[in-house]
Amino acid sequence: MRGKSTNLRIRLPVFLFVAQVTIVALYAAFVTYDDQADARFQNNRTKPMENAVYKDYPMFTDIQVIIFLGFGCLFAFFRLYGFGGMVFNLLTAAFSIQWAILVQGYFQFSHDGKIHLGVINLIYAEFACAVVLISFGAVLGKTSPLQLLVMALLEVPVFAVTEWAVLKYLKINDSGGSILIHLFACYFGLGVTFVLYRPHLNEGHAKANTSYQSDILSLIGTLFLWVFWPSFNSSLTLKGDDQHRAILHTFIGLSASTLTAFALSAMLNKNGKITISDIQNVTLAGGVTVGASVDMMITPAAAYALGMMGCTACMLGSKYLSPFLAQRFRIQDQCGIHNLHGLTGLISCAAGICAILMADEEMYGPSLYEIFSHRAPVEGDPKLHKLQILIPGLQPGLGRTAREQALFQVAAVFSTIGVSTLGGILTGFVLKLPYLAPPSDVFCFDDQLFFEV
Amino acid sequence: MRGKSTNLRIRLPVFLFVAQVTIVALYAAFVTYDDQADARFQNNRTKPMENAVYKDYPMFTDIQVIIFLGFGCLFAFFRLYGFGGMVFNLLTAAFSIQWAILVQGYFQFSHDGKIHLGVINLIYAEFACAVVLISFGAVLGKTSPLQLLVMALLEVPVFAVTEWAVLKYLKINDSGGSILIHLFACYFGLGVTFVLYRPHLNEGHAKANTSYQSDILSLIGTLFLWVFWPSFNSSLTLKGDDQHRAILHTFIGLSASTLTAFALSAMLNKNGKITISDIQNVTLAGGVTVGASVDMMITPAAAYALGMMGCTACMLGSKYLSPFLAQRFRIQDQCGIHNLHGLTGLISCAAGICAILMADEEMYGPSLYEIFSHRAPVEGDPKLHKLQILIPGLQPGLGRTAREQALFQVAAVFSTIGVSTLGGILTGFVLKLPYLAPPSDVFCFDDQLFFEV
Amino acid sequence: MRGKSTNLRIRLPVFLFVAQVTIVALYAAFVTYDDQADARFQNNRTKPMENAVYKDYPMFTDIQVIIFLGFGCLFAFFRLYGFGGMVFNLLTAAFSIQWAILVQGYFQFSHDGKIHLGVINLIYAEFACAVVLISFGAVLGKTSPLQLLVMALLEVPVFAVTEWAVLKYLKINDSGGSILIHLFACYFGLGVTFVLYRPHLNEGHAKANTSYQSDILSLIGTLFLWVFWPSFNSSLTLKGDDQHRAILHTFIGLSASTLTAFALSAMLNKNGKITISDIQNVTLAGGVTVGASVDMMITPAAAYALGMMGCTACMLGSKYLSPFLAQRFRIQDQCGIHNLHGLTGLISCAAGICAILMADEEMYGPSLYEIFSHRAPVEGDPKLHKLQILIPGLQPGLGRTAREQALFQVAAVFSTIGVSTLGGILTGFVLKLPYLAPPSDVFCFDDQLFFEV
Repeated sequence: MRGKSTNLRIRLPVFLFVAQVTIVALYAAFVTYDDQADARFQNNRTKPMENAVYKDYPMFTDIQVIIFLGFGCLFAFFRLYGFGGMVFNLLTAAFSIQWAILVQGYFQFSHDGKIHLGVINLIYAEFACAVVLISFGAVLGKTSPLQLLVMALLEVPVFAVTEWAVLKYLKINDSGGSILIHLFACYFGLGVTFVLYRPHLNEGHAKANTSYQSDILSLIGTLFLWVFWPSFNSSLTLKGDDQHRAILHTFIGLSASTLTAFALSAMLNKNGKITISDIQNVTLAGGVTVGASVDMMITPAAAYALGMMGCTACMLGSKYLSPFLAQRFRIQDQCGIHNLHGLTGLISCAAGICAILMADEEMYGPSLYEIFSHRAPVEGDPKLHKLQILIPGLQPGLGRTAREQALFQVAAVFSTIGVSTLGGILTGFVLKLPYLAPPSDVFCFDDQLFFEV
Repeated sequence: MRGKSTNLRIRLPVFLFVAQVTIVALYAAFVTYDDQADARFQNNRTKPMENAVYKDYPMFTDIQVIIFLGFGCLFAFFRLYGFGGMVFNLLTAAFSIQWAILVQGYFQFSHDGKIHLGVINLIYAEFACAVVLISFGAVLGKTSPLQLLVMALLEVPVFAVTEWAVLKYLKINDSGGSILIHLFACYFGLGVTFVLYRPHLNEGHAKANTSYQSDILSLIGTLFLWVFWPSFNSSLTLKGDDQHRAILHTFIGLSASTLTAFALSAMLNKNGKITISDIQNVTLAGGVTVGASVDMMITPAAAYALGMMGCTACMLGSKYLSPFLAQRFRIQDQCGIHNLHGLTGLISCAAGICAILMADEEMYGPSLYEIFSHRAPVEGDPKLHKLQILIPGLQPGLGRTAREQALFQVAAVFSTIGVSTLGGILTGFVLKLPYLAPPSDVFCFDDQLFFEV
Repeated sequence: MRGKSTNLRIRLPVFLFVAQVTIVALYAAFVTYDDQADARFQNNRTKPMENAVYKDYPMFTDIQVIIFLGFGCLFAFFRLYGFGGMVFNLLTAAFSIQWAILVQGYFQFSHDGKIHLGVINLIYAEFACAVVLISFGAVLGKTSPLQLLVMALLEVPVFAVTEWAVLKYLKINDSGGSILIHLFACYFGLGVTFVLYRPHLNEGHAKANTSYQSDILSLIGTLFLWVFWPSFNSSLTLKGDDQHRAILHTFIGLSASTLTAFALSAMLNKNGKITISDIQNVTLAGGVTVGASVDMMITPAAAYALGMMGCTACMLGSKYLSPFLAQRFRIQDQCGIHNLHGLTGLISCAAGICAILMADEEMYGPSLYEIFSHRAPVEGDPKLHKLQILIPGLQPGLGRTAREQALFQVAAVFSTIGVSTLGGILTGFVLKLPYLAPPSDVFCFDDQLFFEV
């Protein structure tokens, strides 16, 4: 019976202390400061106010709010699982970020044998953390903290490798992270929940419901996400007009999807009333849908239309597709991540591809070759020299055509979905180890199991 | 009986879809990017970090918090109407902003037949939205979402025209929006609630009360407003020392009114206890009262005194004037907007006029003609040339004297109050249409009517 | 019996009005604008976007969130004392900041007989306010609002004098405020609670417990502190790479202490469950522990290790030391400030001293003499001239060695602890005056006493 125990008194501390000792050892051996944070690199030409921290930190705090307060409150929607939603979010997030600093650092920020750490790495790491938290949404309430930590332990490297490979070899445009964040997180999470299938939960669960207070708490989480989502989508774009557009499109997309969500919620309810869980989730669909084309010249109207379309897909998915997937395909998607991140992510990718196909110099001016940097002429091409007069500092590219770039986007979508689904399924099998203390069906969605209540 | 139904299944989606299709069509036809957000306008002299987005976006996120989290939580104070307060706030806000982008864009940001969109327009639109939300405070709990949307549909254009006309023709100083935001919103809202008078509610309503949890939620809303109000009041001032002063004055005003609110709350309670609704509302009075003079050289002490005075007026208004208005004048002002925005707004305007009358070059230096730009000498006046040596880029003004400027302020106060009251009354009559699904008296302040609870 | 009454109807308004009239008179007589906020000092060389407000205001808003929302929610953890925690926090904070503007202004920001006010003073004043609020944590639920105001009235000047004397005469490095903020606040608060000892409370109190809702509210407070703590610790460092490091270290320290807190919480609970109050408090220990060395080149790994150590000390303190202090030493520390601010503060000071002893030019480059400005060569030393070529604007220092600087740090620790303990004890005696309306034992931790519930 020992294996079926969910007592964490030994297992959780053992996992965490081993993890922390390993992390601190790796930090000591491999992590140093980035030039912008290192006192030795400052000299008489350094202008303190031009330090990169002032570009990155305001975006970073906004993303912090999204990760810790936004997801934290949003996940606290179950009546008896408020601590679980909010506190396991904190635990998983803190662990994921520390771990991502190392793994992403190894792949993307290392040179001279060291990982160079600045606030920009924290932003990347919080994106990796967002990936884990979205996947967490699929298994919320059905997993022990130890399972969540092991999931993060495995998902972060799979994500970091995928991110690195896609950016390095396929060289795609994905400023808002529709492919790398939302699709990856969604299909990874669905893979995990597929393996962790619990047949009895399909019949409903006495504790899988909300209360008035928990619904309001979750709404506050929605509002945090709503308010700061433009920062999330724009924090890794080019600075200047690109970031400006990313902010505008995200805001417009969100505000369009908010209205559509109210309309569909009333329309699809048999009494014409508004369902609060629609407001908590579906209103946010626009933020994902504008992602892949968030910094492109798609026009404000297109951002608006994308918000409406994403919201419609998300709503229909949650009403009709999710129950079907749970019944027929053993995919129990607790927070409906397939609707909010999968369907919308696919629409977003399609829109991004259209925007790429339509992009030309007339619409973008010479900036075209900055935004779509792989379309810039190759080194030695006389056109490159002409462009560099217009945009000093333009890097040589790969001379891709719009159509080529679009094909690479398609390749990125399929390979990301493939890798993440496979990674999720394998991770799911690891999470079935009884030592990881999965809660029994009856104790799902219940804080009593892991908290002194 | 059909007309008396409050079922939203058809009406709400119809309204929203028609609105959204119209909006997206208008965006497609008329909305383009502002130069700072348009890739085509970037060239080899563009410095990305000098893009206007970096001046405006930090203020914009603070205002977002005020609108969605601040108002959202503050309006959730009724025990059984937490969803209504928070969710209808989201709906109304999202709609108002989209709509204001078009209407204000037409009046203030259009040239070459296009509305030019940047984050600065979003700030303006969120101010228009704040106007609608303040007016919403007067009718909270007594209106269907459809009524709120129609109110926003009508109020935004009336506001945008008033704003445009006052700024273009009367050319006033009102950085904190005391006249254009607070007075307009207050008298519009009072006009609406006057027409929507419900006699039975004067006898009290079984559901019109708070719970411990709802009071705490509302307090959190107050704290969001408290914390970010300096950004609200300072976001449209001139950059530099003007914005600096606006922040200082708002902070000082709020912190003075907070202490006064505690003092008066205990003093006016027969058991000497603190009334929580005073803390939720009256503490904020100082933020409004400093508004009209928020960027002027009024001294920190004057900002402090204004905070105390505004708070006193607001408190006395809520204890004595509001019940009187409800009983005698059919003005049922649910959140007491007349106290927090009307009385304080009037004090603020009076203070602004005093500050204008006392403003001279000794106190402001040549900056006088930047802050009070209409007092700058007219084109051709030799004094203008002298001033332009001290302040390069100073625009020619109208050569107004302090007294003339003060008179224009007075004119703006009266015309704003007149237009908004009239607009509110007419809007109220529209809102009485039975098709807009007004709740019956017994279902006021109750989420059950419009939500699946 | 009059003296034992807790009716605030006269006393609170009298105190507050006298305070406000005094404050406004002092503001009128002595407070003017800082050069960056004064219109008269702007001229044709002024660049508005280089106004200091743009460096300071983003940090200021983050600290505002910490003070009003973070502390406010965190202190609302008692089931029946949510108003008390949140609302008395607002009252005490608003009063402390106004008062600190004057007192700190007198000691640190006055010249030509005037206190010069800018946003930077508000940041300093919010730090003084944080000191009062931490001390408040020791007596939460056992004090009337009048006692809290009197405590602030006395603590702010003692703090301001200590801060001024330590910075002026001992000239220490303490960017994160481990000595001046955390140790001062902790020992002051312990001094107060020692004098206000209530023997009956050691036997437990029927109302001194939490509910599910109040625990979640308090967790939200924790998350606000967690998210914005890097801004708190970095807002007074040098700009540039120093501030960058301060942000990194605080984030790393917090995220390390968060994992350790989960591990220890499960380990020290006999059922292996997580105790929610550990998550609310102990997770934050890392933010304090990195404080004294937050801007130094301590390496990310050291910040991580400090987070783990601080968390361990805090957790062991709360499990074993706090009950012991309450039983044996009459020190009833309601929120465990000795664990979260005292023990961690001491570790932080020790770490800061080690970092100072190890600091050399190899590690810091010439920036060494900026960060440790008192180690810069004295005026006239030829080395100073050489350094000034590398770092233009380097000020002459005192030529201290690392060891001398370390000794001054030690002196600062002991003198701060001494002054604050004494100040706290004396303040405690003042707070025992019956006129200040201390609640009787039975009405501790109960909103009914001071609020209309």
